[in-house]
Amino acid sequence: MAGTNGSEGKGGKGKVREKEEGITVKKSEDFSEWYTQVVTKGGFADYGPVQGTIAYMPNSYAIWERIQQLFGKMIRETGHRNVYFPLLIPESFLTKEKDHIEGFAPEVFWVTHGGSQELGERYAIRPTSETIIYSFYSKWVRSWRDLPLLLNQWCNILRAEIKSTKPFVRGSEFLWQEGHTVHETEKDADREVMMILGFYKELVERYLAIPVIVGRKSEKEKFAGALYTTTIELMMPDGKALQGGTSHNLGQNFSKPFGIKFLDRNNQPQFAWTTSWGISTRLIGAVLMVHGDDKGAVIPPEMAPVHAAIVPIYKSGEEAAVLKKAREVKKRLEDTGLSVVLDERDDKTPGWKFSQHELEGVPLRIEIGPRDVKEGKVVVVRRDTSEKASVSESGIAAGVEKLLETMQKDMLARARAALEKQTHSAKDYQKLKETIEKGGGFVKADWCGAEACEMKIKDETGATVRAIPFDEEKRLGDCVVCGKKAKHSPYFARSY
Amino acid sequence: MAGTNGSEGKGGKGKVREKEEGITVKKSEDFSEWYTQVVTKGGFADYGPVQGTIAYMPNSYAIWERIQQLFGKMIRETGHRNVYFPLLIPESFLTKEKDHIEGFAPEVFWVTHGGSQELGERYAIRPTSETIIYSFYSKWVRSWRDLPLLLNQWCNILRAEIKSTKPFVRGSEFLWQEGHTVHETEKDADREVMMILGFYKELVERYLAIPVIVGRKSEKEKFAGALYTTTIELMMPDGKALQGGTSHNLGQNFSKPFGIKFLDRNNQPQFAWTTSWGISTRLIGAVLMVHGDDKGAVIPPEMAPVHAAIVPIYKSGEEAAVLKKAREVKKRLEDTGLSVVLDERDDKTPGWKFSQHELEGVPLRIEIGPRDVKEGKVVVVRRDTSEKASVSESGIAAGVEKLLETMQKDMLARARAALEKQTHSAKDYQKLKETIEKGGGFVKADWCGAEACEMKIKDETGATVRAIPFDEEKRLGDCVVCGKKAKHSPYFARSY
Repeated sequence: MAGTNGSEGKGGKGKVREKEEGITVKKSEDFSEWYTQVVTKGGFADYGPVQGTIAYMPNSYAIWERIQQLFGKMIRETGHRNVYFPLLIPESFLTKEKDHIEGFAPEVFWVTHGGSQELGERYAIRPTSETIIYSFYSKWVRSWRDLPLLLNQWCNILRAEIKSTKPFVRGSEFLWQEGHTVHETEKDADREVMMILGFYKELVERYLAIPVIVGRKSEKEKFAGALYTTTIELMMPDGKALQGGTSHNLGQNFSKPFGIKFLDRNNQPQFAWTTSWGISTRLIGAVLMVHGDDKGAVIPPEMAPVHAAIVPIYKSGEEAAVLKKAREVKKRLEDTGLSVVLDERDDKTPGWKFSQHELEGVPLRIEIGPRDVKEGKVVVVRRDTSEKASVSESGIAAGVEKLLETMQKDMLARARAALEKQTHSAKDYQKLKETIEKGGGFVKADWCGAEACEMKIKDETGATVRAIPFDEEKRLGDCVVCGKKAKHSPYFARSY
Repeated sequence: MAGTNGSEGKGGKGKVREKEEGITVKKSEDFSEWYTQVVTKGGFADYGPVQGTIAYMPNSYAIWERIQQLFGKMIRETGHRNVYFPLLIPESFLTKEKDHIEGFAPEVFWVTHGGSQELGERYAIRPTSETIIYSFYSKWVRSWRDLPLLLNQWCNILRAEIKSTKPFVRGSEFLWQEGHTVHETEKDADREVMMILGFYKELVERYLAIPVIVGRKSEKEKFAGALYTTTIELMMPDGKALQGGTSHNLGQNFSKPFGIKFLDRNNQPQFAWTTSWGISTRLIGAVLMVHGDDKGAVIPPEMAPVHAAIVPIYKSGEEAAVLKKAREVKKRLEDTGLSVVLDERDDKTPGWKFSQHELEGVPLRIEIGPRDVKEGKVVVVRRDTSEKASVSESGIAAGVEKLLETMQKDMLARARAALEKQTHSAKDYQKLKETIEKGGGFVKADWCGAEACEMKIKDETGATVRAIPFDEEKRLGDCVVCGKKAKHSPYFARSY
């Protein structure tokens, strides 16, 4: 649709203007500026007046809707139901779990007035919803027969971010889903946590075409108030990790202060075991960062709101025949369930249109000119490789579907190869430090488990424990910091 | 799913408890208490700690998701795209349009702190998003080629409501969609406003099975800042109207203060014409109020998350055969795309289950006992009429589909008959006053158009202009208040 591509994408005429409209820096040379340009020029986001807020524009919101659809199906089929809980949390609720409020206090937005009335108690805008949701759950859960309670909400979350905000990746408001479940036993909660983590891995690898590393967080890095936190970690091209989703076993840490109790199968009162888990619009940022190139975004076919853009090419007099054929091709593709746009704008050159669809990351471009019409074929161009294929008109639907499938597979394979190149191991502290400082990436290193050693690494290299593998090697060496016997061999990295 | 039916719906055993769990008042005798019980006992909502907030529980959120699906399709097919704009609006933005801030100021929640830092400027939590969205649109719209700009967002809205809050109908936080469009001309904006109003009417009548009255609001009742407001008005059983959705032509009232300008086809700068429109989770309240009965909610088949609940009935020893058959029936129905639950709970009697599914409003109940198994048939019971039908097992899919269709049609017809009974006309002021005071409903009466007469009616009867018909009668009489020549013949009513 016209009108939604940001202020940069409008009314270009002539060569000079066309150049300005594209990405003006190389991804490999200035990653941060490249990302900003992809986001704004590609019609994904625009900056809001409040620090760290953005408008989620049609091209990015469509990716979010696709995530909602895919993950929504996974949890629906496993018995979860969607709900919506209040945005405002009384201050007294948020402070009930000590670690929780300590973790979130610095970034809470506080509401003090309703109209001209000062409120009796301040309300927090949810930075996460455990405390408000558990105030309901304590009323709803009475018996083991009420369990498991498996609910999920899609909503906005606010956290006052002042420093290093970046569209999608870190902001004062983002969209997410948060699942909140209640179970009879610790084992049941464990199973839920790991099932959801598996869904996150499948979603991100299969559909977003980004490989992940899974594992547990360290005590220092776990969710404020959790028993333990599991995570999927993604690696960005600049060597910084991005936490893509977390699934927490909260143990009885919340059920005790909030009084979520039930009568068990022996009619004995028990505190329940709870979990929470979330993925957010951060994942949009990951898609743009991992797959984009110097021409703009590259959206994996499985996530793309538009699979193919048809660009008609004609001189005066040829218009009618070309457009007729273009409409036929569009219909043919739409009949197979694909989403296709026909770019009929008469004030833009084909070249301008090519650049625009490349910026936005549309997986395939279909060029149709007078010669193609005559010969009963079209030219299909892949966004990721720029490969051109000549496809016969009769085979267009099958041809396009095949190209999309191949492209999806190739994108994951390329991202996987990049991840492998960015995953290192370090036998000693010097190597760990050098690797982090040189090009970043994940560095696997043995660690004794002490917070002092973890902090030394963080203070001196900026890297943190991103994930402790679930299946550790049988034989670990010594801690690269203190030399004591290692307990874990986590992936360390700097991160967003 | 167990565990989401509110604290009242749990663990009932024996007759007395069963009675308490059902609705204890008649709809016709204490409508307000009846509504509260349907909402809480039917698993639709539970009250939150902040005044006027609720948890939207699975049974109500599913209705909202269905509305999103249906209306989402209507606007997608007419070229609208979904987006998401920031929740927080700087105070200086909200105050740019004078009427707008006057209308909303009393109910705005104000954010004053981020973490421990006091903010330089207060932020409003959006009571509606015109002002924040237009700050973006002023950057995005440059040329007539960018128009129309057709965007929509699904989000939460906060308005500090202190008095007469009621779940779904009036609260401090609700969910809605708000469409915000920009056009070249007033006519284009008019067309958009009326197209959307038509969608709202279709949605509510065809799917929610509630007839509506459409029309324009009076100057006094229009949206703060609008050129004019159109509305769909629904009538509730207690004689009070409920505004179900509004579609506004905002003229150039916002484009001027916010600087939404474009170069027209003659290359001349022009202020754009904008519209906004919304429907909210209020509609859930309307469904419960209009269709519910003394046994609880009745959800129209087109809106129901679960179309049929199968209740197996057996004595010991018969269980296996009955459950086997029940599962076959479930599968057969699900294969046709219906949503079916098989209520296998072994701690509840069939009678308890009947009551529970009736409370929640499941359109059909399917009873399967040992005799039915032998005779190859099942008993299907309609929620709205309690009519029982014996359906052969082989014809179950077609039979159930037919019953659902008929039920949907009958529900709309009954609601239409009720609306007709609740729609009156008044030739003079005395009749208007009496009718409003006696049983309420819509009262059509001639009116000169002066605010003084409108205010007199409001002050003395509580009724306001709900809708001025688009097609007025050719011959109007005199104003029922002042006796001057009438300009309009609106529908007056008290309202939620």
